[in-house]
Amino acid sequence: MPHYQPQPQEALFLMQQAGADAGALAQLPVFAEVDEAIVQQVLEEAGRFVAEVVAPLQEVGDRVGAQFKNGQVTMPPGFRQAYQAFWQAGWPALSAAVEDGGQGLPSVLEAVLYEWLSAANHGWTMAPGLLHGAYECIKHHASDDIKTEYLGKVATGQWLATMCLTEPQAGSDLGRVTTRAVPQVDGRYALSGTKIFISGGEHDLTDNIVHLVLARLPDAPPGPKGLSLFVVPKFYADGSRSAVHCERIEGKMGLHGSPTCVLRFDAAQAAIVGEPGKGLNAMFVMMNAARLHVALQGIGLLDAAWQKAHAYSLERRQMRAPATTRTGGQAHGQADLIAEHPAVRRILDTQRAWVDAGRLLAYRTALELDLARHHPDAQRRDSAQRWCSLVTPVLKSAWTEQGFAGASACLQVFGGHGYVREWGIEQIVRDARVALIYEGTNEIQAIDLLVRKVLADEGQALGALLDELERTMPASGHSRIDQLRAASAELLAGRAHDAALAHAVADDYLRALALVLMEWAWAQIGAAPAADAPRWQEPAQALRRHVLPEFGMRLQIIRDRCQEARQARLQAAPA
Amino acid sequence: MPHYQPQPQEALFLMQQAGADAGALAQLPVFAEVDEAIVQQVLEEAGRFVAEVVAPLQEVGDRVGAQFKNGQVTMPPGFRQAYQAFWQAGWPALSAAVEDGGQGLPSVLEAVLYEWLSAANHGWTMAPGLLHGAYECIKHHASDDIKTEYLGKVATGQWLATMCLTEPQAGSDLGRVTTRAVPQVDGRYALSGTKIFISGGEHDLTDNIVHLVLARLPDAPPGPKGLSLFVVPKFYADGSRSAVHCERIEGKMGLHGSPTCVLRFDAAQAAIVGEPGKGLNAMFVMMNAARLHVALQGIGLLDAAWQKAHAYSLERRQMRAPATTRTGGQAHGQADLIAEHPAVRRILDTQRAWVDAGRLLAYRTALELDLARHHPDAQRRDSAQRWCSLVTPVLKSAWTEQGFAGASACLQVFGGHGYVREWGIEQIVRDARVALIYEGTNEIQAIDLLVRKVLADEGQALGALLDELERTMPASGHSRIDQLRAASAELLAGRAHDAALAHAVADDYLRALALVLMEWAWAQIGAAPAADAPRWQEPAQALRRHVLPEFGMRLQIIRDRCQEARQARLQAAPA
Repeated sequence: MPHYQPQPQEALFLMQQAGADAGALAQLPVFAEVDEAIVQQVLEEAGRFVAEVVAPLQEVGDRVGAQFKNGQVTMPPGFRQAYQAFWQAGWPALSAAVEDGGQGLPSVLEAVLYEWLSAANHGWTMAPGLLHGAYECIKHHASDDIKTEYLGKVATGQWLATMCLTEPQAGSDLGRVTTRAVPQVDGRYALSGTKIFISGGEHDLTDNIVHLVLARLPDAPPGPKGLSLFVVPKFYADGSRSAVHCERIEGKMGLHGSPTCVLRFDAAQAAIVGEPGKGLNAMFVMMNAARLHVALQGIGLLDAAWQKAHAYSLERRQMRAPATTRTGGQAHGQADLIAEHPAVRRILDTQRAWVDAGRLLAYRTALELDLARHHPDAQRRDSAQRWCSLVTPVLKSAWTEQGFAGASACLQVFGGHGYVREWGIEQIVRDARVALIYEGTNEIQAIDLLVRKVLADEGQALGALLDELERTMPASGHSRIDQLRAASAELLAGRAHDAALAHAVADDYLRALALVLMEWAWAQIGAAPAADAPRWQEPAQALRRHVLPEFGMRLQIIRDRCQEARQARLQAAPA
Repeated sequence: MPHYQPQPQEALFLMQQAGADAGALAQLPVFAEVDEAIVQQVLEEAGRFVAEVVAPLQEVGDRVGAQFKNGQVTMPPGFRQAYQAFWQAGWPALSAAVEDGGQGLPSVLEAVLYEWLSAANHGWTMAPGLLHGAYECIKHHASDDIKTEYLGKVATGQWLATMCLTEPQAGSDLGRVTTRAVPQVDGRYALSGTKIFISGGEHDLTDNIVHLVLARLPDAPPGPKGLSLFVVPKFYADGSRSAVHCERIEGKMGLHGSPTCVLRFDAAQAAIVGEPGKGLNAMFVMMNAARLHVALQGIGLLDAAWQKAHAYSLERRQMRAPATTRTGGQAHGQADLIAEHPAVRRILDTQRAWVDAGRLLAYRTALELDLARHHPDAQRRDSAQRWCSLVTPVLKSAWTEQGFAGASACLQVFGGHGYVREWGIEQIVRDARVALIYEGTNEIQAIDLLVRKVLADEGQALGALLDELERTMPASGHSRIDQLRAASAELLAGRAHDAALAHAVADDYLRALALVLMEWAWAQIGAAPAADAPRWQEPAQALRRHVLPEFGMRLQIIRDRCQEARQARLQAAPA
């Protein structure tokens, strides 16, 4: 079975339909020099690197995995060489600022790169994937001294970085973090505590590792407001080893190519990043970008699973297909290609409907991230921020969910062979499972969307987003948008009576918005003349037939629950 | 985390509500001696054996797995001892006939036993799981000579058995089998060919292994009608080794405790079972029983996943739950038990809705299997056969699907810990995945249901089943039954215009019937006075809120597709 193969022309097409093409980007002063030739060249080189260097390490990463011995982690064969080639070619710095040693290119190119990297080798990609948040964090919050020491190295990827947040008792609830930071006479801090689930906490890919650590000062209040952010490297500038120890790595369902470390801090000497008590703020700045990267993992892995299942469906013959679905002329003995069986077509076309919509939405969101930062007009920056704030949790949750469920559907195309390791499809299913959990579980994304984004401002931002979608799609999609508005209004009215109402239907609400966004994305694709080809018509048909009907179900669940809340209130009211 | 714990009292309650209790069973002459004390005793002893002997081997089965070396398979530590204890205690022979060395007990007890075994240790359970089909096959089709040699050993489980069907080019499509059987002068046959995906094809659990093999006689016609069935043991009666060689075992996503073998037959001396050309008939006799066993794997694994997630949700505290869902009095610092968070409650209660309905339907189906064989009244035998024929593919498909998806939802309750091997929940997800594939993929079950069972007799059998369900449930469930009748009629009318119509919506149709059966099952549970307890009320509420709304979506997909077929015909018709 061939390795994952990026398709630069399709990425270009979807960037264009997302309004994130070279022409649109060049309108931002910061990207004035970006033109179509640059975009095309970057995508082609990225595609080549992913296909030739990263994809071939997919299987060994899973089979051999990261190995732990005496506090040290050895990465799977070939991983270090590939990573060294990666940073030396400038890939981690693609969208870092030029003054930090980066190439200053738009986020959408980085988005395409990470989609392909994740599709080709999710485990390997975890290592550079964490760089970008650390870069932004240091760039925007750290002192000049810290920047001098770390910024260039992290921007270029010469050193890799970690985010040390989770502790055994503090997962989704970071307010429970207990790692202590005790001020020292030299102005530094001694960090003590244990962090878990630290991706890339220890490895041999780079000569140094930069840890960003959430911890609590001695006089800090309890809860999330008492957290500060610190930086501590594996090796200090003088070459001495810090007191950050890798105690073990986790055995996991998948993602074996990425060491998930337990790190013990033994009064490790650290510097503070930003102000005391502002640790979470510093990290939340890059939350939307990080969540977008996880969404891209779901999208990429689903595409990788589709590529495998699609190829297999054009090789494997079993039974006759019903007459009307046979493409004819290919009969061979008594069996048709399984690609001609309706059940297989449905699986394949449905996944493409998700992948292509996910890409278009992710590329658009990457554009909006840049607009929110760089657009000269404050109003446009605001609307870009609104897009990112509302669409990112939907992308993260719905597309990682589909990444897993859809990869499992693609496994089904292989029959018994799908369950066997040698075809590589079961690895994708195992790897994809983690993305529903990290960077905020999908349940937390749904609560973030409905409770903190939609209801908190009485539906204002959501209304403005829906207006924007409505303006840019045919009237056939307006009905679902109207229904979503009505359901939002019902939820706004109902939450006064039942504090748990929104939490109870948050998942359904997120799915409903995901389906509206999918319909919008396919309307953007459908507006192109090229969309008449079967390549786009077949998934568009699967969207209508098999995906969008879920919308009505979600709305019914929301409305029934609102109705339940109203009835409970009436029954509770004094007669 | 504790091992899986069977709950005999719950099984008894659900058997009762399924109408499969001791009283009902004793009305069959063959079970005249069955009473409540026997049933209770069998369930308690089975529960103890599963909890004490089989469940503790779950983790080692996955971690060490079956090992292949020089043509031999060594099972994980403890597996042989547990199996020897199992057959010596008489468990494989629970429902085998008394004259064959069995205990002659009803199938429903065997169903409960295998549900628990699968929940506790799916990999280990694969070995005895294949015995029952082989026993029926030999009992009903083999010559007296073969019976003398094998029947008692297979009935009691002293020797284990395999079913050798699949070949590299012949998976779902057994008509493509090419293994040859050449008649010898002594009346035996020389088998040559390669079989794949043979569960338990080689192991050290028992002193001999009995292979049942589909192969083709030299003069056989092509396709499924040319297949005959043969028996060949690992060791012949004289102690000599047969020419059946295990070439390798597959590396798999899960189910590591069960060796999946490639078997090469090198002119292996075999005996024919039944008539030439009737090989598939002999195997299809036990198809419903085998599919029911796979459904029970899905149900059992989902219950095992629920047990783990439920226990974890009562230990782990993260964040405050919305006020109205807090049970109060348990606040501890700033965090509530995650069991009090609506997103977690929804996952847990929804899985229970599936598990309990699945159990009730599986126990009822096991009863109907016995009725179809043993009831004195031909009409009752026919209606039992109808139940099995229609309900079994639904149970196999919908409950293995939920076994996987629901186990993954339970993994989500653990957050990051769910992805880590030590908690054991990710193993359940990996193990559960296979059940969607084997014993007929879920897509094939759906086609079997709609094309071969519902439409083939113009909806007669389905109509009779729906009548039966309607008579035994409250009027609130009749609406969905009416809608399913109408959709079936539309499909009957539409298939004339589009030969692929039924194939295209077979999955939706099967899901719709699954939801009708779930509603019926919960109506049976709800009829008991005990059903007022939160133990049953909470899943019943989850069923209404989160599960049944899917029915409308499935019906819409079916109706829209029928409408599409009508329109296509109108457009194709000459003006």
